[in-house]
Amino acid sequence: MKAKERIWTTQLAEHVGEQVRLMGWLHHYRQLGEIGFIILRDKEGLAQIVSTEDSMASESLHILHESVISVEGRVVAEAQAPGGFEVHDPRIEVISPSVEAPIFDLFRPQIKAHPSTILDHAALSLRHPKRRAMARLASASIAGFRSALSEQGFVEIQTPKIVASATEGGANVFKLDYFGRPAYLAQSPQFYKQTMVGVFERVFEVGPVFRAEPHSTPRHLNEYVSLDAEMGFIENHQDVMSVLTEVVRGMAGAVAREKAALALAGATVPQVPATIPVIHFTEAKLLYIEATGEDVSGEPDLSPSEETWLGGWVEREHGSEFLFVWGYPMVKRPFYTYPDPQRPDYSNGFDLLFRGLEIVTGGQRLHRYEDYLRSLEGRGLSPEPFEGYLEAFKYGMPPHGGFAIGLERWVARLVGAANIRETALFPRDYGRLTP
Amino acid sequence: MKAKERIWTTQLAEHVGEQVRLMGWLHHYRQLGEIGFIILRDKEGLAQIVSTEDSMASESLHILHESVISVEGRVVAEAQAPGGFEVHDPRIEVISPSVEAPIFDLFRPQIKAHPSTILDHAALSLRHPKRRAMARLASASIAGFRSALSEQGFVEIQTPKIVASATEGGANVFKLDYFGRPAYLAQSPQFYKQTMVGVFERVFEVGPVFRAEPHSTPRHLNEYVSLDAEMGFIENHQDVMSVLTEVVRGMAGAVAREKAALALAGATVPQVPATIPVIHFTEAKLLYIEATGEDVSGEPDLSPSEETWLGGWVEREHGSEFLFVWGYPMVKRPFYTYPDPQRPDYSNGFDLLFRGLEIVTGGQRLHRYEDYLRSLEGRGLSPEPFEGYLEAFKYGMPPHGGFAIGLERWVARLVGAANIRETALFPRDYGRLTP
Repeated sequence: MKAKERIWTTQLAEHVGEQVRLMGWLHHYRQLGEIGFIILRDKEGLAQIVSTEDSMASESLHILHESVISVEGRVVAEAQAPGGFEVHDPRIEVISPSVEAPIFDLFRPQIKAHPSTILDHAALSLRHPKRRAMARLASASIAGFRSALSEQGFVEIQTPKIVASATEGGANVFKLDYFGRPAYLAQSPQFYKQTMVGVFERVFEVGPVFRAEPHSTPRHLNEYVSLDAEMGFIENHQDVMSVLTEVVRGMAGAVAREKAALALAGATVPQVPATIPVIHFTEAKLLYIEATGEDVSGEPDLSPSEETWLGGWVEREHGSEFLFVWGYPMVKRPFYTYPDPQRPDYSNGFDLLFRGLEIVTGGQRLHRYEDYLRSLEGRGLSPEPFEGYLEAFKYGMPPHGGFAIGLERWVARLVGAANIRETALFPRDYGRLTP
Repeated sequence: MKAKERIWTTQLAEHVGEQVRLMGWLHHYRQLGEIGFIILRDKEGLAQIVSTEDSMASESLHILHESVISVEGRVVAEAQAPGGFEVHDPRIEVISPSVEAPIFDLFRPQIKAHPSTILDHAALSLRHPKRRAMARLASASIAGFRSALSEQGFVEIQTPKIVASATEGGANVFKLDYFGRPAYLAQSPQFYKQTMVGVFERVFEVGPVFRAEPHSTPRHLNEYVSLDAEMGFIENHQDVMSVLTEVVRGMAGAVAREKAALALAGATVPQVPATIPVIHFTEAKLLYIEATGEDVSGEPDLSPSEETWLGGWVEREHGSEFLFVWGYPMVKRPFYTYPDPQRPDYSNGFDLLFRGLEIVTGGQRLHRYEDYLRSLEGRGLSPEPFEGYLEAFKYGMPPHGGFAIGLERWVARLVGAANIRETALFPRDYGRLTP
């Protein structure tokens, strides 16, 4: 007899009274007197299987949680069951048994283990419905990013991660041996996406970036996914901020369609205002001093506590979970940054804060060859290692700018994760290189 | 007076008789007697601008090819003009001048320079309409790959490229220093995509892979873009081949929609048959011997000349540009390969040839923990470095398999490029690490 076609756990409602076949993992099993309850997990969700026959009880007791099983049975509406439906009179087949009992339970609302144990055992912990939901939100976010940009005429590119020179001109790069020559892992696709503005005018890339920052914080990873975009023929950084606003709206929209994952991950979809509030860096500094009395205005960057405070401020004052801070001091921005023509010590560069955390850095870039030579010289850098990049500016480049969204930071803010490691599948940090 | 809204060169037909504004690069300029002809290039295409006024001639003569310009003028239908329309009475503004004349001409049908010069000057050469078209086909191919898989319930993942151990167990990995510890660049996302089958059942990833193969051939790159997929709950490798067939169909369909790029790149869209012809490895070997008299049957792999011959054979015999070869000897496949239950020296692994070149490798994988331990032992490998990966099989994994498409090889076959370097934006090979 040919086996029934498989259905998903989320399709039970469409098959009430019918014989169906489910396949998936033995998420949970318990025996209450004469009745055995199995929760089966497949890619879409969970389903309860109930048996009063000894056969199931004895068979199931011999298999461990997370074994892969196939179940044929009859769908019954049952208000008490999770989702309102369950499967009765099951015939259970073990497809692939677990060889050990899982070291932590996946059927509890939260994994009860030390955070580092959870990360050490990613192959198991990522199967937990909540962690899996976070990964699904990451996937939806990327899709939203891409479709928002594709709609605006951006072309996707893939650029090399092994590079001959350090992107931003120095520290914090991973070094590798390239057939006997020194090479580095790209800290960003910055040079390449700018170069490609000369080709496609508007480009984006989704890919890994590598930062050899020798410290551990809850907001840094040493390898992460960067959502990069760059666009030509802009007036100034404000055009970039407008596109970014639509991109963030597209990402929030894509995430909003993942209702099951949102609920499981405990995520809240942000409202993206028609225009995201904008504040100048110096003004942000002043507001913070006024409010806290803490004078950190000498620092050419915003501290985590300033960002957190500004997140609260923009929520209270403007009802927005997003805030653009622009005009960061030139001294803190890379050599390709375009200065504010009105106040050349400050830049046409911006950060986007989301719920009090910087998740995007962007801005206008220099586009004239001479400006690059001058900027490199001013920082004591030789133009030689940047030759292939500078060529793009030798041959007419339009005014342009772009941004980079940190995927894991965005997801962390979506789900309210205190530590960014929870939002990467297999995080890499100062102490962690496995699994 | 506010400047006119910019239109694309491809939109001239919609604006006949109107004043419009174009922006882009000075692709070509020539003066014929009293008449000046400019070809402007923007992200969408080319447009001819004609002037009989001295003002334009003199102004244009002072600017170099590839300078970024803005042109306002009146659209005129003109059968002689490229595309059938041109712009008259132009007012030209230089937005960003080139500082040097381009070292090769972009307005000729082909770049006239040595291949390595073309690659050395990617910032310039990628602007050539033909090379740009190839990049656009690559982009469309990736989009087709993703949408075909998303429609079939695959979830996108992003996995780490810095890993603690060599993926396939040994040679040809790039080594790097990870905060004083040795680490490697991932040769493929193989371990991670399999692990994620335990989470999402069906996953895909688009990302860079790194192969430290110390040689130069026209069909290898040391960093390339891999289009990876992996799926659970299969019967055997044939289920994987069915999905792959639909994916290739999706990629061909996405490419087919890029009509302008296809024409510029000189590409031919393949017909993907409802069922791609399949041949066993041993049978392929025999056919080749029969046809050529050359006995290379002892080799556990197909040589480039065998692949080329098979490409011709399947075209003649089956009218197909694609051929599945399955059942490669186990000895040539990695330790996670599932053997053919009928002939355990051969595998449930396959390659897909497209126009005589292997562009995909795939197959069924082992899914039982014990089988992994046995396979590693049989190859003299310790299970220890694979611990994080093997955990996925300790906790129930369904029968599964997958494939990896080499993006650059696919594009090379599409456009008939003799050398794969032409199809990567910034190729990395044994001798090339820049730009």
